[in-house]
Amino acid sequence: MKSYKGIDYKNVELLDGFWLQSQKLNRDVTIKSVYEQFNATGRFDAFRCEWKEGMPNKPHIFWDSDVAKWIEGAAYIINKQPDRELESIIEDVIDCIERNQGEDGYFNIYFTVCEPENRFQNRLAHELYCCGHLIEAAVVYYEATGRDRFLKLMMKYADYVEKVFKIENSAEFSTPGHEEIELALIRLYECTGIKRYLELAKHFIDTRGQATSKEVIDEMNSIYSQDHIPCREQREAVGHAVRACYLYCAMADIAREYHDRELFEACDALIKNINYKRMYITGGIGSTFNNESFTVDYDLPNSISYAETCAAISLVMFATRMSQCKVSSLYADIAERALYNGVLSGLSLSGDSFFYENALEINLRDREPDRGRQHWPITQRVKVFSCSCCPPNINRFIASIGSLIYTYDEETVYINQFIANSAQLEMGGKRVKIKIQTEYPNDGQIRITACGMAGKRLAVRIPSWCEKYCVDSQYRIEDGYAYVDCGSDDFELSLSLDMTPRWVESNPHVWANAGLVALQKGPVVYCAEGVDNGEELWKIRVDINEPISQRVIVGFDAPALSTKGYCLQDCEDLYIPAGQKTEEKEITLIPYYAFANRGVSEMRVWMIKA
Amino acid sequence: MKSYKGIDYKNVELLDGFWLQSQKLNRDVTIKSVYEQFNATGRFDAFRCEWKEGMPNKPHIFWDSDVAKWIEGAAYIINKQPDRELESIIEDVIDCIERNQGEDGYFNIYFTVCEPENRFQNRLAHELYCCGHLIEAAVVYYEATGRDRFLKLMMKYADYVEKVFKIENSAEFSTPGHEEIELALIRLYECTGIKRYLELAKHFIDTRGQATSKEVIDEMNSIYSQDHIPCREQREAVGHAVRACYLYCAMADIAREYHDRELFEACDALIKNINYKRMYITGGIGSTFNNESFTVDYDLPNSISYAETCAAISLVMFATRMSQCKVSSLYADIAERALYNGVLSGLSLSGDSFFYENALEINLRDREPDRGRQHWPITQRVKVFSCSCCPPNINRFIASIGSLIYTYDEETVYINQFIANSAQLEMGGKRVKIKIQTEYPNDGQIRITACGMAGKRLAVRIPSWCEKYCVDSQYRIEDGYAYVDCGSDDFELSLSLDMTPRWVESNPHVWANAGLVALQKGPVVYCAEGVDNGEELWKIRVDINEPISQRVIVGFDAPALSTKGYCLQDCEDLYIPAGQKTEEKEITLIPYYAFANRGVSEMRVWMIKA
Repeated sequence: MKSYKGIDYKNVELLDGFWLQSQKLNRDVTIKSVYEQFNATGRFDAFRCEWKEGMPNKPHIFWDSDVAKWIEGAAYIINKQPDRELESIIEDVIDCIERNQGEDGYFNIYFTVCEPENRFQNRLAHELYCCGHLIEAAVVYYEATGRDRFLKLMMKYADYVEKVFKIENSAEFSTPGHEEIELALIRLYECTGIKRYLELAKHFIDTRGQATSKEVIDEMNSIYSQDHIPCREQREAVGHAVRACYLYCAMADIAREYHDRELFEACDALIKNINYKRMYITGGIGSTFNNESFTVDYDLPNSISYAETCAAISLVMFATRMSQCKVSSLYADIAERALYNGVLSGLSLSGDSFFYENALEINLRDREPDRGRQHWPITQRVKVFSCSCCPPNINRFIASIGSLIYTYDEETVYINQFIANSAQLEMGGKRVKIKIQTEYPNDGQIRITACGMAGKRLAVRIPSWCEKYCVDSQYRIEDGYAYVDCGSDDFELSLSLDMTPRWVESNPHVWANAGLVALQKGPVVYCAEGVDNGEELWKIRVDINEPISQRVIVGFDAPALSTKGYCLQDCEDLYIPAGQKTEEKEITLIPYYAFANRGVSEMRVWMIKA
Repeated sequence: MKSYKGIDYKNVELLDGFWLQSQKLNRDVTIKSVYEQFNATGRFDAFRCEWKEGMPNKPHIFWDSDVAKWIEGAAYIINKQPDRELESIIEDVIDCIERNQGEDGYFNIYFTVCEPENRFQNRLAHELYCCGHLIEAAVVYYEATGRDRFLKLMMKYADYVEKVFKIENSAEFSTPGHEEIELALIRLYECTGIKRYLELAKHFIDTRGQATSKEVIDEMNSIYSQDHIPCREQREAVGHAVRACYLYCAMADIAREYHDRELFEACDALIKNINYKRMYITGGIGSTFNNESFTVDYDLPNSISYAETCAAISLVMFATRMSQCKVSSLYADIAERALYNGVLSGLSLSGDSFFYENALEINLRDREPDRGRQHWPITQRVKVFSCSCCPPNINRFIASIGSLIYTYDEETVYINQFIANSAQLEMGGKRVKIKIQTEYPNDGQIRITACGMAGKRLAVRIPSWCEKYCVDSQYRIEDGYAYVDCGSDDFELSLSLDMTPRWVESNPHVWANAGLVALQKGPVVYCAEGVDNGEELWKIRVDINEPISQRVIVGFDAPALSTKGYCLQDCEDLYIPAGQKTEEKEITLIPYYAFANRGVSEMRVWMIKA
């Protein structure tokens, strides 16, 4: 089994364009806003491990991970641009960890101050999950600063985890209830070169779902944690969506590192199950609030969607890793779908507020009746959640977006995502520079410059949504990529993707979208909001044959579109002869990622066809 | 304020046709089946009042009413055709009541054997509700047999209720939590001529929703029981749907008896609120499982509909009483809608199984995912429920269906429902006979014979669904009725209603039905079932311009229809360009009342337009 290297954020500098703007907002607003909220809620203070019964801000079992993800995000930023304030905050946290870490290497806020006697007793208590995020943070902080204090503390912790879970097998459970440590250990291996960490990650993968696990397994909990069958036998994405994709990330990593075809086949089946049967058009996954989980094939309800922001992020992570296992545009297509829709919708345009779950429809009337315990996604973003995993996940995700763009082998550089950047890599001992200039996704023109690649190839993904495109050089299509031979060491290539907005419909099996269509422009999914179109959006009918034009909404910084549609006319009777008259109406659509930025309003992605 | 008399079941003999068949099934199967189930579950034995802690079949607070409704149904049957077996069962129950009734007149199984110290302490414990049903049963049994033992026992109970709730005002509450006694007291007055009973009913109406009520009122409970504002001020149908309509029945009765225009205006606003904003196309009311209640205007979800069978029955009762207050076809239209759809769907074609809630859509796939506490209507009828109010309500409703047909005053006989029958009445001292012959609703031909009506008028409702009709005599239309002068004492009239099936759509405010159409033939609503059309019914598209023809389904005794439609073709991708090809498909539709008689299957009333 072949594998492909990635070019990570360290060797990628973003250039002017969509994502540089996004990174600036992240650096200037989001990282600070999340810090302030976490500070105000005691998450940073908690690292002092001084909490006692009766004091405010009792630590939660996942607080280590909240701060760790924030540190990871801050470290990516520091990597590009030193920042004393961020570093000082992080150093304080490291001080705390150093002070409170056990002699054996163990560190966990909650179990240190609240239940010291219950260390590694409760599989669902997130200890290994927190450990994994701390490891990732330490790795990135080391890469950003060259200072290895945090890294060494976390290596000590990883050694302890190896002792408890692999050598002694002395914990009350064999594998984590919330996966994360597996992929973190692989990053630790990649950073340190110490293979034991990779092997420990593989150990967790190999052990998972085996009858030999010590934990008491009931069916609900084992499916919830992807522990129902061995990883290599898994073919359907089940359970908690974030846990699932974090696990699949590690499975893909292990498949790549060990050339483990069996594990790759499992990953490939899992990502195809998601892509063909269990993913919102936004790349959102996990259809239900109940256990934040995958449900059944084609179950994609809109107004009660869950589609957690973290889950969309985890899907991008999984898909990006799959691109390192096999060349297929399918994987990068999946990553792109989540990237421009279900991930970005998690963040307000102002950069300081967040969605945890991402509704695909907001029907304010439908929420009025008391239906018992019906759970509805919130309609407006907020600054922090009690379970606030998503905000720092956005921090680290956007700050490291450069890692998503490329993969390569000895012959070919694969361009998976169209993000304006300048990157460096070594190819067969030769230094190569590649530059991508584009306004994508607002525009389909992509200009690629490759220096030092004479005799090598560029392979540019042709997105599956794109029916017309133009490459200004000879090319052949394979696995969804346009392969172009670089004729010289100063090679230039232009790719033009037709970004004409187009209506799409769902697979007929998706009952929630029967009779409905959604608008996409390039990879960006659009939606209609009440603020532009009037409330009761279900009264609107769209004509998929009408032209679609650009529209400027004064004071709203998102590329809107408009088209001619129809609106039903009010009447008195409750039931009337079919075929009633409608009124022409201009319909305004905005990118899904930009919804809910102008006050409470209805929203629909899936519109009713005229 | 004018009022109109009804002709009740006693003076109406059904003739061959749809409802005589239904009454035969009720007499031969349903009444026996309900008896067997109630007997097996201890409901009849409970009247012995011998239950003690530790014994099986602890009485429920509503068991008196279950049996009382059954007795009422049996008594209607006995009225037409003496039946020793039924009478013997009823006499046994009366023996028990006589033996266990208090000296003061009180009788209630549950409070006698389980909580004797808590008599009239708990407003939500159904005592007055049970009392009301026992009174109705006693009235009808007296009318059927001429034997007044049961009637006298219940008059004694009614006297006691008057003492406690009106004279002494000594109970812990002022008005019942579950209305019913009000309309029962009015029936008792109509049977006995004792005006105190009518006045007691009026007292309950006048007292309801007054700040002077003693019961602790929280908003939820007061809306639930229509106790939030005085009856005369009520304009929106709220709370538990059956309670609501039982109350409105009594309000309409009091309005008619006292020529109380204020109370009539409330009733008129309430029934219009239901008709224009809160009623399923089937006449089902009460959209939600949560409190079995009305919700908000235009909230009519299909797959999680509640639409209790008893609620549809109560709506027919209310609408029929409104026809005695004012001439308007609106009321009889409402009754008809519920009658042929949401009431009848409560009973299996075999006559022995029942729906409590009536789904308007069954999507088996949508039920697969675990969504927490989502409540779904059951998909197949069952023989008995633990709260089994609906089965005996169907018994008494079908057995007394003759009461729905006519109203009259000194000049005019109004024909409100098209049920084949022969009826007698006195009009200005003259004996009049009217006969209706029809196969309605399977056919739109209605032949009316009026004997002894020379110089009087017939007024025949023209249903609001009917766009084309033919009356073979001179007529004028007023208030939705065709008025015809009877030229002789042997007058014949033919009415022909165009029963061409037609597609209807919902008021644009109804979000659940956006883009959807339903088929009606005459008053009968149709639906598609998976058993005829294949499952995944949401893949079907109907063309409302295609002709609709009759279809015979072998072995299934309901008048099916078929039309040409389309079905989406399966594909692999989850999201595809809009406007995919479809396959032509013959679509079979059956009457809604006949759904779920051929095993578990999907069902849709509201179909997606092509």
